[in-house]
Amino acid sequence: MPSVQEYLIANHERILAELIEFARVPSISTQPEHCGDIETAAQWVATQLTAAGLSNVKIILTSGHPVIYADWLNVPDAPTILIYGHYDVQPPDPLDKWISPPFDPQIRDGRLYARGVSDDKGPMLIPIKVAEAFLKTSEKLPVNIKFLIEGEEEIGSPSLETFVAENAVLLTADFALSADGAMWRVDVPSITVASRGLVGIEFTVTGAKKDLHSGRFGGAVANPLHATAQLVASLHTPEGRVAVAGFYEDVRELDSAERLALARLPFDENDFLKQIQADELFGEPGYSTFERQWTRPTLEINGLWGGYQGHGSKTVIPSEAHAKITCRLVANQNPQDIQDKIVHHLTQNLPSGVHLDIHREDNMALPYEIPETHRGLKIAADVLGEIYGQEPLHVRMGGTLPVSELFKRLLGMDTVFFSFSTADEDFHAPNEFFRLQRLYDGLTAWALYWQKLAVV
Amino acid sequence: MPSVQEYLIANHERILAELIEFARVPSISTQPEHCGDIETAAQWVATQLTAAGLSNVKIILTSGHPVIYADWLNVPDAPTILIYGHYDVQPPDPLDKWISPPFDPQIRDGRLYARGVSDDKGPMLIPIKVAEAFLKTSEKLPVNIKFLIEGEEEIGSPSLETFVAENAVLLTADFALSADGAMWRVDVPSITVASRGLVGIEFTVTGAKKDLHSGRFGGAVANPLHATAQLVASLHTPEGRVAVAGFYEDVRELDSAERLALARLPFDENDFLKQIQADELFGEPGYSTFERQWTRPTLEINGLWGGYQGHGSKTVIPSEAHAKITCRLVANQNPQDIQDKIVHHLTQNLPSGVHLDIHREDNMALPYEIPETHRGLKIAADVLGEIYGQEPLHVRMGGTLPVSELFKRLLGMDTVFFSFSTADEDFHAPNEFFRLQRLYDGLTAWALYWQKLAVV
Repeated sequence: MPSVQEYLIANHERILAELIEFARVPSISTQPEHCGDIETAAQWVATQLTAAGLSNVKIILTSGHPVIYADWLNVPDAPTILIYGHYDVQPPDPLDKWISPPFDPQIRDGRLYARGVSDDKGPMLIPIKVAEAFLKTSEKLPVNIKFLIEGEEEIGSPSLETFVAENAVLLTADFALSADGAMWRVDVPSITVASRGLVGIEFTVTGAKKDLHSGRFGGAVANPLHATAQLVASLHTPEGRVAVAGFYEDVRELDSAERLALARLPFDENDFLKQIQADELFGEPGYSTFERQWTRPTLEINGLWGGYQGHGSKTVIPSEAHAKITCRLVANQNPQDIQDKIVHHLTQNLPSGVHLDIHREDNMALPYEIPETHRGLKIAADVLGEIYGQEPLHVRMGGTLPVSELFKRLLGMDTVFFSFSTADEDFHAPNEFFRLQRLYDGLTAWALYWQKLAVV
Repeated sequence: MPSVQEYLIANHERILAELIEFARVPSISTQPEHCGDIETAAQWVATQLTAAGLSNVKIILTSGHPVIYADWLNVPDAPTILIYGHYDVQPPDPLDKWISPPFDPQIRDGRLYARGVSDDKGPMLIPIKVAEAFLKTSEKLPVNIKFLIEGEEEIGSPSLETFVAENAVLLTADFALSADGAMWRVDVPSITVASRGLVGIEFTVTGAKKDLHSGRFGGAVANPLHATAQLVASLHTPEGRVAVAGFYEDVRELDSAERLALARLPFDENDFLKQIQADELFGEPGYSTFERQWTRPTLEINGLWGGYQGHGSKTVIPSEAHAKITCRLVANQNPQDIQDKIVHHLTQNLPSGVHLDIHREDNMALPYEIPETHRGLKIAADVLGEIYGQEPLHVRMGGTLPVSELFKRLLGMDTVFFSFSTADEDFHAPNEFFRLQRLYDGLTAWALYWQKLAVV
């Protein structure tokens, strides 16, 4: 029999073909019209887990999109890990910016382009294929594993809390190993040790209850677009601080040692601007770019709209205008408290002549940190050191991984992030891609990780 | 032979059926995909003019949508009038607010519902049918008439200036009689004696040149939605005055007699709010609602958009945000000068970290007034007095009728507005309608007008 690593290398092409097949499914969790695609993707994952040789493969229905569970628990003395990933993807808008269609995967320059390949279909396929490699070559795994693959990560995992709470015994393990997340740079291996929390609000401003002609009525009635712009503008100072009263009240400021550690991380402003295709940095005064991205909370408008958006002009005063807001939170902010403060701000700052409707988004997540001494973290560092020939950096994450907070709170488990996605791979934007080399590195790395974890 | 009025009454049903046929054509001038419908509508109008018995019927191509010309010039001693109307319509958005589809005309409660029936297909069909009535019953008209029916009114008539300049001899008449415009209320006959000018700008704010994940990059890069909201908010004071420097500089303030005349016009705040379906008035401090609508300039955002507008949330920092602006102008503001001032304001007030692209809309119009002593105005007042049993009010118009300014400047002619549209008929909004009684009143009135005009 070949070794596990030999088996994986011999199967690179087939695994890539399977990822391409998976990426063809537009499993967009936020759009109800894609419910059928969500089911197709869930079924695809379950079929893969079964084919890999795992036991107890189940598609478990929730109040939202289904969760897939599988396990292999046949080494009584070895640790047990819970492997986390998700099969849902972000919407592909704006469609016209994609070079190749988002659900017609194409390889260019060693990269696979398609919505969801980097976040999280590629990374989550890796542990399934590594399990397959162990079971096909030696009929056993070095450690006990459980898979939890969800379909609601991109909408903030609204059903996951109830699911985890109701299935605590099924899911409990020594720690969670997440195939979701991202390394921060392609040239420097890294491990994420903290992530920001999330909370959202959407609001609608209404003027007259019907669209009006701006000639006939302009000047005599409030324009909800003006009011909405004023409300949105009121949320920040011109310098870029959030202007909501009490927003920063519970933020734990970093101590000087922590700030020094961040300041020592390699950062090239030109490279960063090139990566994000921007001309200049912008953010909260008094903080470095890493501090702004990882350790400071934000309030971002993700969508703003009202009135005529077509070609040419339309002299209308629209009836309604809309805005979508999400905040990234850091320790020790509380999502519910921040939501309350924003609602208060919007209500207090509403201009005259219009009506405000606020929708509080249900999905929210606390910020999270893993202890620096965690054994799972140490093994991740060793594996990455072996593969890339350099010690990985400990970095924080600007994004939100609600599962880590959830696993800690409900199951008492920490989460080690071990994803082979890279932060520049345009997830949540047009032309998302996954580097083929990272797929292959990931297969090597996950096999090594389990072998090292088995050695007490 | 029946009299003209008898002929018209006998043909009410057929004329209505023809208007319904006309309203089925989605001749939306601002959307390039409707070019074929524009041609269909132009051809329909030309066919109607020919069938009515007019001479020299021509569809004349311009750099934009075609103009239709026709005439009848066989009474050497009588005055000549230029009849103006337009066959293009506004876009029907938002479609989901229409009770019946915008291009499937339906009659409910004595009203014909369809996009464009009130603005301006119904009113412009009236003089064609009146000409037909005279020519079918007596083979002649009381006065000389020329028709100029354009297809670009709803986009600010960009080709009309060149067309009028190049065809000055063809078009010149004693004055213009416009079938476009509107009476201000259904229960009070009125004549419009002034209209506001128009100028537009569209702008795009760009941050990073691609959409970014708000978790990874939020806090470290400018969000164009924030910058756009700040720019839009900067255009007005919280009280509702335009905050662009010099915006009001050239405005001719009304004298006290003029303000008194406006103050004497009947106005019921509750009725007005009910008509526009709003809860409260809002506008420039220190002016009445009529003054705000008719005699004060405005700056309105007609469209504002960027980022995710779909269901649920998408944690994106979009690359771009957009806004469409139009201003209504009053004497003695100059559209070009106001455009310059807004461009200056936007450029000076641009927040940090973003790039601004400004598109100056070509279509602009000066404000216009007709002398109170004009004979064509007097005849209009007499006709409306006979039909409705009360003296019509002289009102101003909040909207823009660029032709009046154009005819004055290029042909030295004044324009009398003689439309049977009513201001509450939701043109430029969902569920536009035209009252059937106004169609029939208009037929009676236009026949009377020409007869009175012939009497020296």
